[in-house]
Amino acid sequence: MFENKDSERTTLEQLGEFGLIDHLTRNLKPLQQGTIKGIGDDAAILQFKKGQVGVSTDMLVEGVHFDLGYTPLKHLGYKAVVVNLSDIYAMNMQPTQLTISLAVSNRFPLEALEELYEGITLASQIYGVDVVGGDTTSSNKGLIISVTAIGQGEKENVVYRKGAKENDLLVLSGDLGGAYMGLQVLKREQEVFKVNPQHQPDLEPYSYLVERQLKPEARKDIFELLAALDVHPTSMIDISDGLSSEILHLCKSGNVGCNVYEEKIPLDPTVISACEEFKLDSSLVALSGGEDYELLFTIDQKEFPKIKGNPNLTVVGHITDQASGAHLISRNGSSIPLTAQGWNAFGQQ
Amino acid sequence: MFENKDSERTTLEQLGEFGLIDHLTRNLKPLQQGTIKGIGDDAAILQFKKGQVGVSTDMLVEGVHFDLGYTPLKHLGYKAVVVNLSDIYAMNMQPTQLTISLAVSNRFPLEALEELYEGITLASQIYGVDVVGGDTTSSNKGLIISVTAIGQGEKENVVYRKGAKENDLLVLSGDLGGAYMGLQVLKREQEVFKVNPQHQPDLEPYSYLVERQLKPEARKDIFELLAALDVHPTSMIDISDGLSSEILHLCKSGNVGCNVYEEKIPLDPTVISACEEFKLDSSLVALSGGEDYELLFTIDQKEFPKIKGNPNLTVVGHITDQASGAHLISRNGSSIPLTAQGWNAFGQQ
Repeated sequence: MFENKDSERTTLEQLGEFGLIDHLTRNLKPLQQGTIKGIGDDAAILQFKKGQVGVSTDMLVEGVHFDLGYTPLKHLGYKAVVVNLSDIYAMNMQPTQLTISLAVSNRFPLEALEELYEGITLASQIYGVDVVGGDTTSSNKGLIISVTAIGQGEKENVVYRKGAKENDLLVLSGDLGGAYMGLQVLKREQEVFKVNPQHQPDLEPYSYLVERQLKPEARKDIFELLAALDVHPTSMIDISDGLSSEILHLCKSGNVGCNVYEEKIPLDPTVISACEEFKLDSSLVALSGGEDYELLFTIDQKEFPKIKGNPNLTVVGHITDQASGAHLISRNGSSIPLTAQGWNAFGQQ
Repeated sequence: MFENKDSERTTLEQLGEFGLIDHLTRNLKPLQQGTIKGIGDDAAILQFKKGQVGVSTDMLVEGVHFDLGYTPLKHLGYKAVVVNLSDIYAMNMQPTQLTISLAVSNRFPLEALEELYEGITLASQIYGVDVVGGDTTSSNKGLIISVTAIGQGEKENVVYRKGAKENDLLVLSGDLGGAYMGLQVLKREQEVFKVNPQHQPDLEPYSYLVERQLKPEARKDIFELLAALDVHPTSMIDISDGLSSEILHLCKSGNVGCNVYEEKIPLDPTVISACEEFKLDSSLVALSGGEDYELLFTIDQKEFPKIKGNPNLTVVGHITDQASGAHLISRNGSSIPLTAQGWNAFGQQ
């Protein structure tokens, strides 16, 4: 039906709501044994053999969370899935199913939604989750994506934001600031493009940063590593809004304080050089940048030998008592109270 | 913080994203034993003792699915919950939890979202479900609501769209067309109001219709009745898009045909009189109107004695073989092929 690439673009009206859902989800084959019935009934039917179920939901709005001026639709679909899976991994649970709802304005032809679904399909295959439901409707303006992720885990393995205890170590996966600097690079190129549409951007030196922004990954590998190392975090959260904000969540939830050491915050060399280029403080970018989707967790000190020397994990600080508060210990040794300067969807309007 | 009603309206920026979620959900107390952790972590944690889990999701877009010109926000919140619960009941399952995501433009003050959440809270209390998560963000235009409903049931009790067998009876709860006629009344009043803002509408004669449109209920009572009567539907769906469209779903899913008798379609007297007033064919309204959220199901003929004479249930037809197709048998005895003329989110733009 859509093989003739030279034909006119297919409008969503031509296909209708049910035809559209059938068409977009045609490549999605269930991978999870627990998916009894996916798309095509009033509700998906799932079976969870034992343990607990995690549910997380996120809404992404064009012009607020993403800009199609520099975000390819396939990447957007991939990212929309990944950021939700990240929330399930942050509970130390295995993501198993997703629902995807879309509201799209009529300016989007079918081919645009196909691209978006290519990214959704790719992410669901890579992470082994099933898209079991969704809704596709029209919007008055732009594209809105709502994703709900479902996961499962044994009760004793589920890790909450609360649970950090005094003297626990604060551990971070990967490195920070890349996604934020990738966004700065993309925004700069967009401005240049507005002035000179002939300009061919050379994003090669920034490929790590741009990929961190456009095609982030959820730390499935860290979830698996923690299980393999028999490490049981006492609390965990994923870095969506910046390290500062997430540390404060752990401290508030656990009624504890913490010291975070500026010199320990892991930064990729390309983040450091981009920060120099953009005249930004790299520590501030790591603390407030957001969208890195790394995992931040606390462990009892006696678990330290299990993670010692692991290149994927960095101890960035330790938990203190609540009265001490949450502080950044700067390179010169001064203690600075941490504040949440993460991304605020309402403040940015 | 918000007790001074005379103060200026609170903007969403003042509260911030986390403050907003905390504030809106402050009256929501978990009712379900299976809700281990609700709002406040990366994911909600649920426990399902046994059986299967149903998941359904819907997105409602201002200007597409609702018009705030005649839809009070409290009713909208109530309806957004109810339409999703209806999908879970249509699987013959007990709804247990919900997630609610909102995207709102800055023209909505906090007080508007409070009203919306009043309706959400009321529905969740009446139906005994927990709001366990969600996301609240800004939109560029209007209000978008995305709801995911979760339910549970024993494997042997779950009823799918497929499963209808030849000679099964086609049964409907309640009556049809009310929601559609309520919408016509509201639209007419809105037009009158545009011309004459002093006009005081008298909606009293249309109260049933307007309530069916603005404050529909999911048929929790029918779900409970079927269990009490020990009736096991062979297939089931809820009426969101009109009887015709839903019957065709059951026939297509079950590879069967059906005969539906026009004279058996249950209509409230106020629907009939409003149809006369608006010069609409009441059968067509029932077949294509939608949004009634009644349950349509099939039962084996031997179960008929269990439902016979029940004022909540009407046998509207019977299942035939697939080759015979799906037909409406009109009052004069002619057989008319059923077509899906239900609501199409894309066709209405």
